Amino acid sequence: MEYYSNAISQLIQQLSRLPGIGQKSAQRLAFHIINMPQEQVEKLAASMTGARANVRYCKCCQTLTDQELCPICSNPRRDHSVIMVVENPRDMAAYEKTGKFEGVYHVLHGAISPMMGIGPDDIRLKELMQRLQSDVSEVIIATNSSLEGETTAMYISRLIKPTGIKVSRIASGVPVGGDLEYIDEVTLLRALEGRVDL
Amino acid sequence: MEYYSNAISQLIQQLSRLPGIGQKSAQRLAFHIINMPQEQVEKLAASMTGARANVRYCKCCQTLTDQELCPICSNPRRDHSVIMVVENPRDMAAYEKTGKFEGVYHVLHGAISPMMGIGPDDIRLKELMQRLQSDVSEVIIATNSSLEGETTAMYISRLIKPTGIKVSRIASGVPVGGDLEYIDEVTLLRALEGRVDL
Repeated sequence: MEYYSNAISQLIQQLSRLPGIGQKSAQRLAFHIINMPQEQVEKLAASMTGARANVRYCKCCQTLTDQELCPICSNPRRDHSVIMVVENPRDMAAYEKTGKFEGVYHVLHGAISPMMGIGPDDIRLKELMQRLQSDVSEVIIATNSSLEGETTAMYISRLIKPTGIKVSRIASGVPVGGDLEYIDEVTLLRALEGRVDL
Repeated sequence: MEYYSNAISQLIQQLSRLPGIGQKSAQRLAFHIINMPQEQVEKLAASMTGARANVRYCKCCQTLTDQELCPICSNPRRDHSVIMVVENPRDMAAYEKTGKFEGVYHVLHGAISPMMGIGPDDIRLKELMQRLQSDVSEVIIATNSSLEGETTAMYISRLIKPTGIKVSRIASGVPVGGDLEYIDEVTLLRALEGRVDL
């Protein structure tokens, strides 16, 4: 990139290392940043280094947070006896956006994947099992509907069942508003298997 | 976003203000940044503030650079008598990638657009006219093939013609490898008008 000066090509190179940002987007972002008000660039940069430096795992649910306990675990109005297990903080945020789940979460930070060499000890399962020693009535497994997510769900349910705590799995099927014509066969079969009486 | 702690939601908010980065991408980027090695995050942040603080306009061609003259204007092996006029630094980089243009550039930072209220004084035209007082043999207008780009090209060519300096416009037509079937009519007509003898 000798056609850009040093400061610019360095910025482009740094930006293009971020996920989903190719060479073209990195260029566009770089020039946008160069044209932003100085103070706004400093705010953006500070929010990055600040988040990186201060964010850690919630002592209870293991999500990423800047306090000892995340906003949900420290909220007394949540039902702490119902735990929804998710793969990552973004999945947790997705369920929070529905505004209908009143329990708490447990973030695994991954899923079991023999293919990728990720075993039960590589995700935050031990921490989940420890939480079950307090008063828990139900564990809802909301890992993804992928091979890894299903494997993880099976593994966790087998681990929890002996404790007598109720274990459930979120439903899998045709998305609301989905047109059957465009839905893959595995999902269609899953929806058929999971049919409910009307 | 009360489901994310402060540091995280602030980072997501800052990132989502960048062009082409929606709420979902901002979330993905934020968690990626939080998981990056600390030193790498600091490098990314520093490259942003550094570029913003040090980058200015090249004294000659008006592109963005961190020196008084950009790498191209300060290169004695370039042909400084041939000036290619482009709308922005990314267009300049696009032509540089071809590796075949040996002249220099002039970056307008925009195009004339009566619709958007951008007139000839709002782009770096005055600086181009000043450059023509030194030894220039040809000005190649490489503004975009849009309404604004064409308007700008016409305006510049009328401005330069009286000086006797050669003015040319890059060709417009069917892109190489393009399938006629999928090309818009305006481009097809343009390609017909611009046909060359074989």
